[in-house]
Amino acid sequence: MALIVQKYGGTSVGSPDRIRNVAKRIAKFRAQGHQVVVVVSAMSGETNRLIALAREIQASPDPRELDVMVSTGEQVTIALLAMALKEIGIKAKSYTGSQVRVLTDSAFTKARIVSIDEEKMRADLDSGHVVVVAGFQGVDMDGNITTLGRGGSDTTGVALAAALKADECQIYTDVDGVYTTDPRIVPKARRLKSITFEEMLEMASLGSKVLQIRSVEFAGKYKVKLRVLSSFEEEGEGTLITFEEEGKMEQPIISGIAFNRDEAKITVRGVPDKPGIAYQILGPVADANIEVDMIIQNVGAEGATDFSFTVHKNDFDKAMGILRGGQSHLEAREVLGDDRIAKVSVVGVGMRSHVGVASQMFRTLAEEGINIQMISTSEIKISVVIDEKYLELAVRVLHKAFQLDQEV
Amino acid sequence: MALIVQKYGGTSVGSPDRIRNVAKRIAKFRAQGHQVVVVVSAMSGETNRLIALAREIQASPDPRELDVMVSTGEQVTIALLAMALKEIGIKAKSYTGSQVRVLTDSAFTKARIVSIDEEKMRADLDSGHVVVVAGFQGVDMDGNITTLGRGGSDTTGVALAAALKADECQIYTDVDGVYTTDPRIVPKARRLKSITFEEMLEMASLGSKVLQIRSVEFAGKYKVKLRVLSSFEEEGEGTLITFEEEGKMEQPIISGIAFNRDEAKITVRGVPDKPGIAYQILGPVADANIEVDMIIQNVGAEGATDFSFTVHKNDFDKAMGILRGGQSHLEAREVLGDDRIAKVSVVGVGMRSHVGVASQMFRTLAEEGINIQMISTSEIKISVVIDEKYLELAVRVLHKAFQLDQEV
Repeated sequence: MALIVQKYGGTSVGSPDRIRNVAKRIAKFRAQGHQVVVVVSAMSGETNRLIALAREIQASPDPRELDVMVSTGEQVTIALLAMALKEIGIKAKSYTGSQVRVLTDSAFTKARIVSIDEEKMRADLDSGHVVVVAGFQGVDMDGNITTLGRGGSDTTGVALAAALKADECQIYTDVDGVYTTDPRIVPKARRLKSITFEEMLEMASLGSKVLQIRSVEFAGKYKVKLRVLSSFEEEGEGTLITFEEEGKMEQPIISGIAFNRDEAKITVRGVPDKPGIAYQILGPVADANIEVDMIIQNVGAEGATDFSFTVHKNDFDKAMGILRGGQSHLEAREVLGDDRIAKVSVVGVGMRSHVGVASQMFRTLAEEGINIQMISTSEIKISVVIDEKYLELAVRVLHKAFQLDQEV
Repeated sequence: MALIVQKYGGTSVGSPDRIRNVAKRIAKFRAQGHQVVVVVSAMSGETNRLIALAREIQASPDPRELDVMVSTGEQVTIALLAMALKEIGIKAKSYTGSQVRVLTDSAFTKARIVSIDEEKMRADLDSGHVVVVAGFQGVDMDGNITTLGRGGSDTTGVALAAALKADECQIYTDVDGVYTTDPRIVPKARRLKSITFEEMLEMASLGSKVLQIRSVEFAGKYKVKLRVLSSFEEEGEGTLITFEEEGKMEQPIISGIAFNRDEAKITVRGVPDKPGIAYQILGPVADANIEVDMIIQNVGAEGATDFSFTVHKNDFDKAMGILRGGQSHLEAREVLGDDRIAKVSVVGVGMRSHVGVASQMFRTLAEEGINIQMISTSEIKISVVIDEKYLELAVRVLHKAFQLDQEV
């Protein structure tokens, strides 16, 4: 008997029929004697419908009230799934984020989980119930409803698994696992049977979109065994996210090609090269709750330096406004922005023990005449920023260059 | 400066435009310096949409889960109204029933309010906010979401007014007040400028549908000044519900003709005429959470008695099942049921000081050949149960006989 947390996304619960299918799948796990906690998203389209309704009232809806509104999407799904389970004779009980006390900070529309009270869930599980929890939402110290931002249901799933010390957290989605890259761009992309946590982290943060990055961070931090599965296929093992590199020796150096077209680039040129300048530039951006991804600082001429970073396209105007406002204070020569960029990354733990990955990547791109604007590296990935119009081409040639289309 | 609680029903908040209109009306009260607490229902059609969705999963949805689901209807409205207020520069904050701690019992889908925590609201009002509260919903001792049943938003409004000791509770609806009877049946029906609490109680409980009975009970108990107004007319005083009979001397004996077609009649024939028999019959019905309206017991022959009562048509099958199950235990000769009945009542405090109202009512019905099946009287009303096919006819002839179409 194991304790399993399952998370079903919006497409998986997109209609009464699909909700019934999810109930049947859960029943199978119950029949095997497992305890099951289920996290669900809003039915597909519902969150967008609610946001559109809010925008009919306010072009830029008040964040606190928007969270009150959009959190109803998951609330409807938990009730429907609990009903579907009862309908086939499975004891079940639904909980909103507030009811199961998913305590978060107060950053409306992008809150972070602080703690979860697992007591109620534990009691329900012990009395044979399936516990159905609304993903994506929580409650702050003052009792205000919060949401975790898009994709937050994954995070809820992993956080619950961590709080309950679950044996496995299964993320059901409309793909059957993690691929070497997006099959829509490279038809020969292959499903990976396993991927290390670190690779997954890079893949997710770089835009592979299978799992939300925060959920992978959580999983890593609390050593939650995470598996990505298809909610539409009966069988299939999906992709397991592992925390060891064992058995990886036979695998290729590179696991996948990730990419992201949702970022924009900002460059602050000619700021004085002195201690604290990075904080002076990024502090006000962070204070505005804007997440920064890549950060690059180059040595410049005459005691000045150039500083570049990327933010989500949605935050681009806001971030530009903040920096232009502070330009004279920063003594910067100029502030440049470009929101027509894309980021492409090669990811793989094998990189650690192999040289030449970077040079092969750069050569491959150069052969196609693709100019590299920014480079950033970590232990297991190399990311480049390029003109967004070359994105698909870059992904295809890199996938081929690193032989990802060949079964190992 | 007064503290006013306003309640807007589903039609009044049925679209973004109407929500904006409600916000404008509230702004007018704020401009006059009043503090305002607003209670809203779900947008019209939304509760039915949610119930229909639930029924796609369970023909008879689980009550706890149904409450989780339908309570989202008001949750969406409070957020939208708070946004609409902020959009026109009015400070506002929304609360679900759970957040403002409308504590109820645990009778899902028909819970009763136990207490309300007014602290948060008071603090918000003092800091110049309009407080927007979800009607119809609450939370039980264990943190489960509950709903008060159809029309429960009126009750929320009055209960909040009582908790806050508000100066007036205004119920905005799609009619502009309380009428002598339903204008759809009698076009000459007139709006009453005021009506006593007791009359209103009888009018509401007898199906006039302007206000939910529980809200009027609450108002009476806590002496809340209650006014029914149209949300579509800019001016208009509506109908004030008064708690004194002063100034009523000039008014007619009868204030209105109420009716109800939602009830069904059950008769238990030939039960032993002994102490405790009423409890033996109605105890199990009450235990099943079925509300009983009229109760009549006739003396029968040979130490036996006949016992009749009415329940809501929705509860008819369930109540019949309970009584047929207990028939032998009750030693009843037979249990009869009829769900094709209607109740018609004449209501008026003037009845107390005037004789002959009952005989005039019975004569008027007899002249039209309408048979009376049950009679029940109180201080200020006389109700009869008749075949439902005569309902409209009975209402029209009684309205005329008591000269209700004539302005006083």
